[in-house]
Amino acid sequence: MGESSSQDGGATAGRTGVWLIGARGSVATTAVVGAAAIRAGLAPATGLVSELPEFHGCGLPAVGDLVFGGHDIVECALDKRAETLAEHGVLPPGLPALVGPALAAADAEIRPGVPAPAPPDQPSQAGQADRVRADLSGFRARHRLDQVVVVNLSATEPQPPPRPAYARLAELERALAGPEPVLPPSSLYAYAALRAGCGFVDFTPSAGARLPALDQLARELRLPYAGSDGKTGETLVKSVLAPMFADRALAVTSWSGTNLLGGGDGANLADPAVAASKTASKQQILAGTLGPVAGAVHIDFVPDLGDWKTAWDHIRFRGFLGVAMTMQFVWQGCDSALAAPLVLDLARFTARAQQAGRAGPLPALGFFFKDPVGSDEHRLSVQFDALRRWAAGLGAAA
Amino acid sequence: MGESSSQDGGATAGRTGVWLIGARGSVATTAVVGAAAIRAGLAPATGLVSELPEFHGCGLPAVGDLVFGGHDIVECALDKRAETLAEHGVLPPGLPALVGPALAAADAEIRPGVPAPAPPDQPSQAGQADRVRADLSGFRARHRLDQVVVVNLSATEPQPPPRPAYARLAELERALAGPEPVLPPSSLYAYAALRAGCGFVDFTPSAGARLPALDQLARELRLPYAGSDGKTGETLVKSVLAPMFADRALAVTSWSGTNLLGGGDGANLADPAVAASKTASKQQILAGTLGPVAGAVHIDFVPDLGDWKTAWDHIRFRGFLGVAMTMQFVWQGCDSALAAPLVLDLARFTARAQQAGRAGPLPALGFFFKDPVGSDEHRLSVQFDALRRWAAGLGAAA
Amino acid sequence: MGESSSQDGGATAGRTGVWLIGARGSVATTAVVGAAAIRAGLAPATGLVSELPEFHGCGLPAVGDLVFGGHDIVECALDKRAETLAEHGVLPPGLPALVGPALAAADAEIRPGVPAPAPPDQPSQAGQADRVRADLSGFRARHRLDQVVVVNLSATEPQPPPRPAYARLAELERALAGPEPVLPPSSLYAYAALRAGCGFVDFTPSAGARLPALDQLARELRLPYAGSDGKTGETLVKSVLAPMFADRALAVTSWSGTNLLGGGDGANLADPAVAASKTASKQQILAGTLGPVAGAVHIDFVPDLGDWKTAWDHIRFRGFLGVAMTMQFVWQGCDSALAAPLVLDLARFTARAQQAGRAGPLPALGFFFKDPVGSDEHRLSVQFDALRRWAAGLGAAA
Amino acid sequence: MGESSSQDGGATAGRTGVWLIGARGSVATTAVVGAAAIRAGLAPATGLVSELPEFHGCGLPAVGDLVFGGHDIVECALDKRAETLAEHGVLPPGLPALVGPALAAADAEIRPGVPAPAPPDQPSQAGQADRVRADLSGFRARHRLDQVVVVNLSATEPQPPPRPAYARLAELERALAGPEPVLPPSSLYAYAALRAGCGFVDFTPSAGARLPALDQLARELRLPYAGSDGKTGETLVKSVLAPMFADRALAVTSWSGTNLLGGGDGANLADPAVAASKTASKQQILAGTLGPVAGAVHIDFVPDLGDWKTAWDHIRFRGFLGVAMTMQFVWQGCDSALAAPLVLDLARFTARAQQAGRAGPLPALGFFFKDPVGSDEHRLSVQFDALRRWAAGLGAAA
Repeated sequence: MGESSSQDGGATAGRTGVWLIGARGSVATTAVVGAAAIRAGLAPATGLVSELPEFHGCGLPAVGDLVFGGHDIVECALDKRAETLAEHGVLPPGLPALVGPALAAADAEIRPGVPAPAPPDQPSQAGQADRVRADLSGFRARHRLDQVVVVNLSATEPQPPPRPAYARLAELERALAGPEPVLPPSSLYAYAALRAGCGFVDFTPSAGARLPALDQLARELRLPYAGSDGKTGETLVKSVLAPMFADRALAVTSWSGTNLLGGGDGANLADPAVAASKTASKQQILAGTLGPVAGAVHIDFVPDLGDWKTAWDHIRFRGFLGVAMTMQFVWQGCDSALAAPLVLDLARFTARAQQAGRAGPLPALGFFFKDPVGSDEHRLSVQFDALRRWAAGLGAAA
Repeated sequence: MGESSSQDGGATAGRTGVWLIGARGSVATTAVVGAAAIRAGLAPATGLVSELPEFHGCGLPAVGDLVFGGHDIVECALDKRAETLAEHGVLPPGLPALVGPALAAADAEIRPGVPAPAPPDQPSQAGQADRVRADLSGFRARHRLDQVVVVNLSATEPQPPPRPAYARLAELERALAGPEPVLPPSSLYAYAALRAGCGFVDFTPSAGARLPALDQLARELRLPYAGSDGKTGETLVKSVLAPMFADRALAVTSWSGTNLLGGGDGANLADPAVAASKTASKQQILAGTLGPVAGAVHIDFVPDLGDWKTAWDHIRFRGFLGVAMTMQFVWQGCDSALAAPLVLDLARFTARAQQAGRAGPLPALGFFFKDPVGSDEHRLSVQFDALRRWAAGLGAAA
Repeated sequence: MGESSSQDGGATAGRTGVWLIGARGSVATTAVVGAAAIRAGLAPATGLVSELPEFHGCGLPAVGDLVFGGHDIVECALDKRAETLAEHGVLPPGLPALVGPALAAADAEIRPGVPAPAPPDQPSQAGQADRVRADLSGFRARHRLDQVVVVNLSATEPQPPPRPAYARLAELERALAGPEPVLPPSSLYAYAALRAGCGFVDFTPSAGARLPALDQLARELRLPYAGSDGKTGETLVKSVLAPMFADRALAVTSWSGTNLLGGGDGANLADPAVAASKTASKQQILAGTLGPVAGAVHIDFVPDLGDWKTAWDHIRFRGFLGVAMTMQFVWQGCDSALAAPLVLDLARFTARAQQAGRAGPLPALGFFFKDPVGSDEHRLSVQFDALRRWAAGLGAAA
Repeated sequence: MGESSSQDGGATAGRTGVWLIGARGSVATTAVVGAAAIRAGLAPATGLVSELPEFHGCGLPAVGDLVFGGHDIVECALDKRAETLAEHGVLPPGLPALVGPALAAADAEIRPGVPAPAPPDQPSQAGQADRVRADLSGFRARHRLDQVVVVNLSATEPQPPPRPAYARLAELERALAGPEPVLPPSSLYAYAALRAGCGFVDFTPSAGARLPALDQLARELRLPYAGSDGKTGETLVKSVLAPMFADRALAVTSWSGTNLLGGGDGANLADPAVAASKTASKQQILAGTLGPVAGAVHIDFVPDLGDWKTAWDHIRFRGFLGVAMTMQFVWQGCDSALAAPLVLDLARFTARAQQAGRAGPLPALGFFFKDPVGSDEHRLSVQFDALRRWAAGLGAAA
């Protein structure tokens, strides 16, 4: 056997690196711990979609072969972070210690993130992008990786106001060379990732690669990108309940939701401009399937919930002869435990897509996202079928 | 225009009769009121699956053209029943009065049901079946119907113990001629319906047509049948949530449910033998999709809920690295308002199937049932696709 | 027996008028229908606290003897309003017709409310107050009433900014005579009610009588007043759960709530300035009993809920050794059916208090309010005891 | 300072032992760990009612001075048990190690429990009782304890059928000397405890000291006893909600509940005869406050919940003019974390009562129980007041 192994005997994705923006956060840490635990046989593959029987034979890189690195603006060591997560019930107690070497290896590949006000020695965003590209190139070279996928896990940003420079690549690069910052951080990372020859996945609702100029760049360089906003809890449930009402010809008249969450994400979403990005993405799924529906979505920061999230949804609908009825659900999930396996799934699928020559947006990965790039399909079962068919095509690719 | 009109211009199902066992119950009354209201333009088609755009062009009989009759063992007049339903919020206030003539017409076609201890003048079940056949033949003749579909809406029965006579038609008919009752009422109706040349639908979990001897009869006479146990509330939700967990590789470890219901159905289900039929059918859906899952299902009779039903489900599942999470839902539905449009849907689809020469079980109607005959598929979206494809085939039939 | 009868043989409150600000609203209409239905023996006294055995012998005016009138700025006739409420399930179908004469009598005593921009012929608020006083005096004279209680049921107002004129009566009356409006409508009604010799109850969180100058007026004229903000649903539950946690030494760390409501109140509360009045009043109860607790309260307007209200509360608390636990509740109530009997209770208690010479704020009525005037006690059971003892004192009064 | 310290400077309870039946169970282990943690300043007194300001000055023994021992029929060492509880989130991770010596000390005082079929060398229950008495006397002597309180935490038993021997002490002791077992284990422990001069508390719904013959014994020996069935979760909430409905004159028509629990208690309650003891105790509280109410209570064993318990209650009530409304709550609690501090509270109050000469049942401790001995008061706030007043009396005692 060569230096790379895949889940099955067919074509393989080769050696794959996963570069995480926000590499010291809960989701990233959980993903790194989990990949190591699965490799060591310490944990089952629960929650990993890419390990379902439907996806055997697609040539995905093995979970245990993924190599991790990333950027972050905080400095807390990964093993410390993992210990804290274990204390909060996100990781099984004792597991961080058992995968200590894997954590240390990933920790050694984490570089300082792009600071929000640019540092004096990198006055232009072009300069900042160059530094990110250099980090990615070094990572690929050190580990002799066949491809690297960059996954954005950093805090949600407000949507940037439209700018002319976003429309075309040439104008964007002119602007990047100037002294004024033009791209929000997520898009700057997307730009640098593509320029470094990496696929890009946005797990947040930030702008990321979803600017026309960056789409143009991805297509020119024959690189794939995917997003946005991982679908981990309340919205996941919406994506199966909304089609249920539609297929039964029941008329949903209002859908109200309140999300309580602690942790860093919760604190960040207490900022109304940021929350607007998120709630827009959360309601979109309804309009697509049900048409216009009344009701607000709240996101509240409740610190004592830690890494846990509680969502209450109240759905009012009319049945035969207009009789009004009600459904409610409460979702109590651990966000990191729900998101981390999806990050691994996305890295595996995107790496294989890149190897198989897929370029531009990957709408078939819409199954994983609240706001799928390149698709307005929100019905989970239809998305799953599309993913299955697309992945089968990857298996047939060289 | 001829004497029958359909929803579209193509092949049509002809004049269709709907014969309801339990014709004076809440569901039947709501169905009759609703069909009349839709015909008169007094109500939209909310809740009617067969009116979705997906099913235009299938040649279904128009809702407004359905002719109703049935059996019942109670005597309350339909208009009185409808008034009571309106007082309880199941029907819009004032609507029963507006469709009075339609209620009177249906009322005139309701015959006394088969009494549970056989009457002295019909000592054998064969005699009872003859009487039912005569009722059905008279109905068809009076209204010059092209086909009649019999729908069982009567109270759930305990499962009958196995008997040798159930295995083959010849033996069954020998036994029916004897003095001992051999079939439970639902199956006696199914037998009589088929012998009268009618399709048969079981909306309850009772045995109905699901005995080998009756299946043999249906195939020999080229008649369709469908069942069992209409999927109206808690189980409907299960049928989309279970695949969601499966497709996300989340491991459901327990699924507990409590159903509170008033009304006649609730009182009947307070009998443990009867409830066993129901709860078995309610949990089946999980095992099919998720494998073995712990947890009990309770059905409690709570008289003050009237025609309304509340279900609470508590689902415990494990995500990445074994982290345990919880989802709960509460469904507050009006059973008659949920069931009645499905009865109309089933009558329309079965009538069209009969006209198009479909015989034996109709697994494509599994979308409507908790325990679909001829299928072990329980995922709602897959069932909807199957229904859509099958219905398209009907549209293409003569 | 004389022209007034009370619930018992002792001292009586005499003939009592109830003057409702917002007399054509849902709560007022329900109160008028209910009082008539109870008098006619058409309905039990469910929901009427003042009819509990604890309050026999207090000399309250009989429910059936209350005489109704009021102000409103809309014109819909009471019988039409009652019919609409019956269609929406707030009143039993058929009941409005049975109490038609009582509705007509109340309707004849409704006068146009004080318009928000003052009319040209009453340029000063003093002039407006005079008109209200004249309406009240006429009502009292026509029905030979011993006392009249004015109850504010109109839409919640934003809190007025502080003004020097609010501090003392003399300054307030000087300002009222000027051309600039100085009081919000609720306080103008309270001023006019007191000047007309009536007790005043504020069932809303508006300012009402809670300005120092109006408190001074009430004390000088020996008149009682009570408020604020009827405690009908979510907050009622809070007022028993918060003491439960406190008495068990359980540490509540967050208490989050979302209220969904349709109807006029919901539409009004969609205005953030108005909602601020309401949510402040709703959270106060927690701080009083539990100290500072994290968590937000949302009030959402969901039109399809009509007169119904759904509240979801999520409470996070710590037990022994800091273990975090969760309680949630869902309250699905009909606001008018919850509020209307409290309006009758408050009118009866306040009338009796006035007769017994109680002046100024009535903290013993805190049992009925979210934000009780003259008290910072929020524990429901303590409030009930206080009410019981105070009412017993009324019974002993002349 | 002498050899015993109390929470305050007044009269003190002296050195107090707490003897736990079921000493190796979750609740007992949590109580021992917690008392040690509080003594060491490692944890606050959250959940300990007896530490509320209301109970300062009552002369209770200090939590940190309690000395633990007990009986159990299993052999798992306390430190192992505590580690398991920490893994399941019942105890903070790391805490068991910090209180190792206290666990070891308690462990050394645990004796084998009375085996269900009597051993050959102790053919009579009198002989078994003697052995228990000897264990208790030895414990008291070794630690020079002023008093010992025995608390039953063992698995719930079915209710014993009535026997003549239960009526009077003389007959009971005659029967105990015979070869046939006459008392269920909980009552045998109660008998032995009283004979050894110890107060007795039953935290379970088992018979315990609640037989006339044992009541007679307690009164003759001037010893106190308390029970039954600690009120930790669903029933605690009922005890504040039921009075809320009653005080608002709202008519509760049904109250349905489902309890899901894992752990040893859950497995035990899967036995219907045992569950009957429990559900009877759980519904009693409603009848006492609300009169007859429809609705069933289910207790389901759901292993994956571990030490956690989820209760869903659905309450249907009528308001003004009969309008039906609904309240639901979900309680997600850790049973051991809720019960353990109450065990410490009960031991402290009972020890102090014994010292102050209180004999027979202690109805003032009804605040802690679902089925309070010597009282039919179930309203939590009234119970709290009674406890407060009674405890103040203890403070005044010598």
